[in-house]
Amino acid sequence: MNERTKYILDESRLPKAWYNINADMPIPPEPVLHPQTLEPVTPEFLSVLFPMNLIMQEISRERFIEIPEPVRQVYKLWRPTPMFRARRLEKALDTPAHLYYKYEGVSPVGSHKPNTAVAQAFYNKEAGTRALTTETGAGQWGSALAMACNFFGLDLEVYMVKVSYQQKPYRRIVMEGYGAQVFASPTAQTDYGRSVLATDPNSPGSLGIAISEAVEVAAKSGGQKKYSLGSVLNHVLLHQTVIGEEMLQQMEMAGEYPDMVIACTGGGSNFGGFAFPFLRENLQRGKNTRIIAVEPAATPSLTKGKYTFDYGDTAKMAPVVKMHTLGHDFMPPAIHAGGLRYHGMSPQVSALVAHGYVEARAVNQLATFEAALLFARSEGIIPAPEPTHAIRVAIDEALKCKETGEEKVIIFNVCGHGHFDMASYDAYLKGQLEDFDYPAAAVEAAMAHLPQVG
Amino acid sequence: MNERTKYILDESRLPKAWYNINADMPIPPEPVLHPQTLEPVTPEFLSVLFPMNLIMQEISRERFIEIPEPVRQVYKLWRPTPMFRARRLEKALDTPAHLYYKYEGVSPVGSHKPNTAVAQAFYNKEAGTRALTTETGAGQWGSALAMACNFFGLDLEVYMVKVSYQQKPYRRIVMEGYGAQVFASPTAQTDYGRSVLATDPNSPGSLGIAISEAVEVAAKSGGQKKYSLGSVLNHVLLHQTVIGEEMLQQMEMAGEYPDMVIACTGGGSNFGGFAFPFLRENLQRGKNTRIIAVEPAATPSLTKGKYTFDYGDTAKMAPVVKMHTLGHDFMPPAIHAGGLRYHGMSPQVSALVAHGYVEARAVNQLATFEAALLFARSEGIIPAPEPTHAIRVAIDEALKCKETGEEKVIIFNVCGHGHFDMASYDAYLKGQLEDFDYPAAAVEAAMAHLPQVG
Repeated sequence: MNERTKYILDESRLPKAWYNINADMPIPPEPVLHPQTLEPVTPEFLSVLFPMNLIMQEISRERFIEIPEPVRQVYKLWRPTPMFRARRLEKALDTPAHLYYKYEGVSPVGSHKPNTAVAQAFYNKEAGTRALTTETGAGQWGSALAMACNFFGLDLEVYMVKVSYQQKPYRRIVMEGYGAQVFASPTAQTDYGRSVLATDPNSPGSLGIAISEAVEVAAKSGGQKKYSLGSVLNHVLLHQTVIGEEMLQQMEMAGEYPDMVIACTGGGSNFGGFAFPFLRENLQRGKNTRIIAVEPAATPSLTKGKYTFDYGDTAKMAPVVKMHTLGHDFMPPAIHAGGLRYHGMSPQVSALVAHGYVEARAVNQLATFEAALLFARSEGIIPAPEPTHAIRVAIDEALKCKETGEEKVIIFNVCGHGHFDMASYDAYLKGQLEDFDYPAAAVEAAMAHLPQVG
Repeated sequence: MNERTKYILDESRLPKAWYNINADMPIPPEPVLHPQTLEPVTPEFLSVLFPMNLIMQEISRERFIEIPEPVRQVYKLWRPTPMFRARRLEKALDTPAHLYYKYEGVSPVGSHKPNTAVAQAFYNKEAGTRALTTETGAGQWGSALAMACNFFGLDLEVYMVKVSYQQKPYRRIVMEGYGAQVFASPTAQTDYGRSVLATDPNSPGSLGIAISEAVEVAAKSGGQKKYSLGSVLNHVLLHQTVIGEEMLQQMEMAGEYPDMVIACTGGGSNFGGFAFPFLRENLQRGKNTRIIAVEPAATPSLTKGKYTFDYGDTAKMAPVVKMHTLGHDFMPPAIHAGGLRYHGMSPQVSALVAHGYVEARAVNQLATFEAALLFARSEGIIPAPEPTHAIRVAIDEALKCKETGEEKVIIFNVCGHGHFDMASYDAYLKGQLEDFDYPAAAVEAAMAHLPQVG
């Protein structure tokens, strides 16, 4: 019997290509629509925000896209990441299930986000972009992109939600440490920011406002600056598949194959990156693995939202896509998994859920922190609040195996460490956290504001 | 030519034994003295605080001490840790030197401290200890011991310096997350704490006070509780040698051997753990590697202190040992490398410096943060303030190689990440940090209070 705890791939086995789910989507793609005309967008429209090489990746149907060597060279600073057999957690649960987790927290910024940040910075540099703009909430995405821009010599402007800028300074300092400029959004530097401040000078900001500011700056830069997004889009999910491609090799090292693949999902990039290579095995090689996307009950786009056309952002400046949505004017409750608070969802993940290729599940935050502490006390690692959603479901499934006696192989992704999120644990330990089920009536009401797509 | 970035050992190559420098010390050992009688201590005296199995390790002359299997099982949660060729830093410096660094920040608590915490928890559990007590400043040691005690089912009481408890809550929450009890020291729970509070009810606390509280609780527990220390003692340095033993194997993978071995030093455990296996190669196999211990100019025990007998703690309750000391009543300035602010030094490291087997160097904090940002922007990793001292000297030596054209092989230890220390980077980036050279006159004055050892 294999007694290993940690499965590490040699650097030579770092994947040479990303996997593009578009090559194998079992459902015909839906068009991406212009936010004003609601007609299908052209690459030229998108090129105001993104360089053409990334737009080509966005719409590519090629199954495997080669990872450029300069990107692989940066990946090697922390990749391949380890996979662990969760032996101590299995023991704590007294389950016959075999639990394995991938750990992305070993990256320099502590999460999976650099997998696409590095690729986007590289392609922008190739395309002649001088600077990138982006938004960030708690700062996980912004810090990844700051590191990536630094490596490829791009300037970076980060519009950080003001309340996070003030209350969560650590990741802001990380961004500044890598040389990025960080602004508390809303700012007085953009038309949209000024309009918000005119109405409410004390606005705490929101991700929607920050997106609109970052988009505006790029759109008005005359091509000098491009905008970068950390989730939702196909090219972002594509870059994240390096996680699942490594995991496939590591499961082979372990001599097992998963019955269940579990990851948390906000915009879908962590989930897609981990799960899509296993989905390919389902679609192409007749494997029958259950693939489970886990979201917060407080932001339940997949489990309570509608699968319909909606704007990607609050200000209706981003394209309209068919996806699971809570409505673009959704106001996320103040739960602690800041990375999972988006109103919509990757169109690919949405379509796969809508057609039954992926299961969706929602869990509430008290249960996720309970699972997180059990995980931390078993495996040592204190996870970020986002992956605790996947950990919760993995534990639930392992406990079902205890009842049935089944030796199922369950794998899940721990997409980041929680060292920047200890205030959330403090609130949980002090009994200050509450559960929140997003009301179905609010979703119904939001549907009245959807774009009227033929 | 070898083009690797990252050198990872397979789990099977996790060292099976720690290396005990006492077997090869080229200098006869000095006695350890009782703090009241100033006579050599007996194991029985030490056994009030430590279990006998650790006391036996403390005085052992055996060259290799087997790492117990349950300790290796926990080590495997993050060990072997990676070694990197710092190719991007070399390029940024335009140096012909080959730079390699070991990275201990991948441990669940982000530092090297668990290497001994896990071993101490295991041996205490074996010896029937019910609970451990310890002190912590910023919390790096306390969080490592909290994780370790959790794994072996021991209770833990941590006396945390009050000002850190209030101003740096993140690592306190980490400790509580693992199930430890954390008290703001001085407390009203100990005689010593009450005496401090009687004089100054608003005392911000100090590491010296916290040590005295933790020691008192263990000493008065009737054997139920033992005390645990995170540095200075031989058994602590012993457990840390797993770092250097791995590094030796990884340098072999790289096909190179170091001309220089560099690590930072506060009490000496990170330095000893990294450097002693290479020192053994010097002593036993005629290697001629320069071994450099780097300390802050603000707490310069090795470079400005005296090599003499002194108390291990401020309250004169700990044994008296021969070491480099700034005087046991040394008040450390508020520099940001909290882990390097001890008045004394490991007796082994002290003796090796005194007799020329190890070089000592002091650097000031502005230069270390400058080096840290260059490192972070080159290699991605944001280091804790402590290892930036080693990074500074490695960079200085690499720049000398640039002048001379020498292709020296320089290795250094990055003993932890800085994700809990971003406030220090913020202060640096805002220009709020200052350099501080500890005055020689203060050392002279402190020498008047040394114990009068025949």
